[in-house]
Amino acid sequence: MILARVEGNLVATKKNPKMTGRKLLLVRPLYVDSPGAADLKEGTTTLVAVDDLGAGEGELVLVVQGSSARLGMTDKDAPVDAVVIGIIDSIDLDRRILYRAH
Amino acid sequence: MILARVEGNLVATKKNPKMTGRKLLLVRPLYVDSPGAADLKEGTTTLVAVDDLGAGEGELVLVVQGSSARLGMTDKDAPVDAVVIGIIDSIDLDRRILYRAH
Amino acid sequence: MILARVEGNLVATKKNPKMTGRKLLLVRPLYVDSPGAADLKEGTTTLVAVDDLGAGEGELVLVVQGSSARLGMTDKDAPVDAVVIGIIDSIDLDRRILYRAH
Amino acid sequence: MILARVEGNLVATKKNPKMTGRKLLLVRPLYVDSPGAADLKEGTTTLVAVDDLGAGEGELVLVVQGSSARLGMTDKDAPVDAVVIGIIDSIDLDRRILYRAH
Amino acid sequence: MILARVEGNLVATKKNPKMTGRKLLLVRPLYVDSPGAADLKEGTTTLVAVDDLGAGEGELVLVVQGSSARLGMTDKDAPVDAVVIGIIDSIDLDRRILYRAH
Repeated sequence: MILARVEGNLVATKKNPKMTGRKLLLVRPLYVDSPGAADLKEGTTTLVAVDDLGAGEGELVLVVQGSSARLGMTDKDAPVDAVVIGIIDSIDLDRRILYRAH
Repeated sequence: MILARVEGNLVATKKNPKMTGRKLLLVRPLYVDSPGAADLKEGTTTLVAVDDLGAGEGELVLVVQGSSARLGMTDKDAPVDAVVIGIIDSIDLDRRILYRAH
Repeated sequence: MILARVEGNLVATKKNPKMTGRKLLLVRPLYVDSPGAADLKEGTTTLVAVDDLGAGEGELVLVVQGSSARLGMTDKDAPVDAVVIGIIDSIDLDRRILYRAH
Repeated sequence: MILARVEGNLVATKKNPKMTGRKLLLVRPLYVDSPGAADLKEGTTTLVAVDDLGAGEGELVLVVQGSSARLGMTDKDAPVDAVVIGIIDSIDLDRRILYRAH
Repeated sequence: MILARVEGNLVATKKNPKMTGRKLLLVRPLYVDSPGAADLKEGTTTLVAVDDLGAGEGELVLVVQGSSARLGMTDKDAPVDAVVIGIIDSIDLDRRILYRAH
């Protein structure tokens, strides 16, 4: 899974029927770029993930990718390859706090 | 899923029988390269996606990849790993409009 | 799927029994690196794909990857992750011809 | 599979029900960057893996990714794409010891 | 599939029960970096693959990745995503010999 920040959302009226009613989020992957890093580093690309948990803009989320993403949804046959499966409360690194949600 | 722009199409007469009648699009991935970006950034590679939705050249589409792509088609046993599952109307980012289809 | 050019072939006598009789091609991914590009750009890596269609050296092919590759073969249980599913006749881009097989 | 070092852990209260009770680790991929390398090289990104083996911070682990990750868990239907399947004792390279756990 | 050279091996005593008795190899991907290249180019990363064929250090192997890797094993439910499915005898490129095993 990857860490990502929710940055926006998308609307697609014309779509595969199984995507009807799905909330589509634009998310940016986040990394810890070196063992001693003091902050999360933002990736330079974005992806689109389906959200069932009600994640809001700016929140940190856990995104599962590939065929396993379908298991994160109610409909296991939806054509999706990235789904939000958690909203991050905190990240601890090397016995210090790297991130804490407000 | 990824955002992509439709740039062209391909013809392959000699092909796997299950690919007969499929429309093959050449699409370019699009990203938002930084949180404050004013525009979508074009990737420097392209991929080939099957289209059932009638996406035209220049349109922004949502592409699902991997084994989940097959679930975006009528024939779930087709040997495909990238399928168009939506045509994008709009992208909102950080409470501003990043993209709106004409 | 990706576009690729057939550059060579491999022989492996000691192999998984399910690979017996499979033709193994060395292929190079090809991309259109920018929307206005006049030519296909060759990738700097190669991969190995199984071929059932009789693709020859120098030909452009369509390669499916991942678990979907198995559906491009007669034996759906073969341990393969890249299979040729089409031989490209032509690529049209932005209403001009980018590639036409001779 | 990839080698990775455990660097931290994550807490997500709001999550997919199937993720309840899962230990989420932040891990950094490790590589041998050239055949004669004397040490493991740390990657510049991180990923999140589920752990059932009790791996601790600083330990080297083996991580399986993709749909196969689910087979590394008791619940084969969990929406996960990266799971720890081994804790590394030693790595031998070219008849010399590259790594030995203390 | 990818070409790779076997560089070493790993031991993990504490592991997923389904990994018991598996031989774990550290392998380095190899590429042909341009159409006219005279040699194989070594990648700068490594991965871990399961081996059932008895590949030795220094040998060139064919590695299948993803869920298809499981089909290269006797136990189709093992949590693995990279398996050796062939030992390379020769690679021909553009009607010349690029590699021949001794």
